[in-house]
Amino acid sequence: MYDLIIIGGGPAGITAGIYAARQGLKTALITKEFGGQLAKKAVDVENYPGFEKISGQDLIKKFESHLRKQDIEIIKKEVGKIEKKGKGFLLTAGNDKYQAKAVIVSSGADPRPLEVPGEKEFIGKGVSYCSICDGPVFREKTVAVIGGGNAGFETAMFLSNYVPKIYILEYGSEVEAHKAVQESAENTGKIEIITNASLKEIKGDKMVNSIVYEDLKTKKTKTLEVKGVFVEIGTQPATAFVKELVDFNERDEIKVEPETCETRTPGLFAAGDLNIGKYKQIITACGEGAKAALAAYEYIKKNAK
Amino acid sequence: MYDLIIIGGGPAGITAGIYAARQGLKTALITKEFGGQLAKKAVDVENYPGFEKISGQDLIKKFESHLRKQDIEIIKKEVGKIEKKGKGFLLTAGNDKYQAKAVIVSSGADPRPLEVPGEKEFIGKGVSYCSICDGPVFREKTVAVIGGGNAGFETAMFLSNYVPKIYILEYGSEVEAHKAVQESAENTGKIEIITNASLKEIKGDKMVNSIVYEDLKTKKTKTLEVKGVFVEIGTQPATAFVKELVDFNERDEIKVEPETCETRTPGLFAAGDLNIGKYKQIITACGEGAKAALAAYEYIKKNAK
Repeated sequence: MYDLIIIGGGPAGITAGIYAARQGLKTALITKEFGGQLAKKAVDVENYPGFEKISGQDLIKKFESHLRKQDIEIIKKEVGKIEKKGKGFLLTAGNDKYQAKAVIVSSGADPRPLEVPGEKEFIGKGVSYCSICDGPVFREKTVAVIGGGNAGFETAMFLSNYVPKIYILEYGSEVEAHKAVQESAENTGKIEIITNASLKEIKGDKMVNSIVYEDLKTKKTKTLEVKGVFVEIGTQPATAFVKELVDFNERDEIKVEPETCETRTPGLFAAGDLNIGKYKQIITACGEGAKAALAAYEYIKKNAK
Repeated sequence: MYDLIIIGGGPAGITAGIYAARQGLKTALITKEFGGQLAKKAVDVENYPGFEKISGQDLIKKFESHLRKQDIEIIKKEVGKIEKKGKGFLLTAGNDKYQAKAVIVSSGADPRPLEVPGEKEFIGKGVSYCSICDGPVFREKTVAVIGGGNAGFETAMFLSNYVPKIYILEYGSEVEAHKAVQESAENTGKIEIITNASLKEIKGDKMVNSIVYEDLKTKKTKTLEVKGVFVEIGTQPATAFVKELVDFNERDEIKVEPETCETRTPGLFAAGDLNIGKYKQIITACGEGAKAALAAYEYIKKNAK
């Protein structure tokens, strides 16, 4: 029986782990891997205070090393289910079961799929959700990034190291990336932004060779010849294993009390990208991990009396 | 006319500055000095993810250097007043006036005074609110720390480098410091904790030579011979200059909408130790600074249209 189990090894989970262990809680952190989206970040992190410029991979290594200095058990598994059991919780991960008095869910978010014809068919054959994993494969080829937010521009910027030309397709009438991110991307001189673009289909033979989109202003259908399609239209919270115990908003994010990150189930907390928090940043995820751990500590102390 | 003025140079203000500048806002940060409470922290910081162990002074230097890499104006002054002017704000600092479309207040908190006889009289003559500033003066002398929270224990731990014996007086029936902090302090072997202790008076001649407290259990009055008294009973938000524009809770903390840190005055945000946030940590202050800056950016973008 643990005091606390933390699910997820991204910034929120790691911070929760550091705080929980320092509070003297008997804590386990269960995660398939460390880093979450941060480990797949296509460009350097420049907005985590204290590090002027650091790769996502290096930052997560520092986080992981910080965590491993604490008295905490790290279990490399994927949690399949969380249930209430008595006053506490029962977690299933593979064939193993774990019990805890309180749980912090910080399993982050997965890429949101496009849900257009050709997407599933061409996964690994031109369609990618991870530029840092797949980008180098597209050397000297024209590619498209779907989505004009921060992630879309960062992906384009990373891809500009390899490819001569990148289209960014944005559904809205203007792109939403932060100014500094937009400018860095545009400075590469390789990026063409197409707004009001609704992607309709990904086409190819064995591999992707074009995409079809509708121009929402002119209502005309257009085709772009590209060999790669990078999907960056946001994320969806990774919460299937906990859905019986929490409430969701319209974006499938877990509803929490903002100051404590507690869900509707007492003793169950949700921190980081999977909750209703409006601004999803590394530093805000860390802040929530700390809050959730301190709130879990108070919950356990009160409940154990 | 600035887009945004940030008041305060602690973790919240610095993070807000990094984020605001990266959003392309014309931003000024006004502060007397950098660091806030962090710069006066008596022991190393071990819970800011990414740095396993770093002094408060070194961490704030890294933060400041990160901030100074941005396109932001830094003004070393103290803000005396904020007023609404038209759609924006007018700030007075010394003889100068500044205008901005939006303002983030992150001026932190000051030590809360004891308000007992002798306190004011002996400031600088044995009474201190900053162990890191004054601790070495008390070499080989017995001292008392008033307050059994994290700050009290951290102060005692720092003082143990200089003095042979430290009393920690806690008003409550148990101390509230985090477990890891308590243990580190107790490991010094120099600390005696006195709970249920209500401080009544600080006595001395030219300098402090004793304190008088009531044992709340036995109702007896007791005297301890000490040469130094370190006051660590919490903080009070540094908000006098903004009080006409915001609402406060019962602890004089500024009421904000938790997701955006916006106060009751549109365009005026409050981030860090001076708002209602329950857990006051470096990492949570940074998270709030990021949120406030992103929310201010949205406010300015919408309002300028």
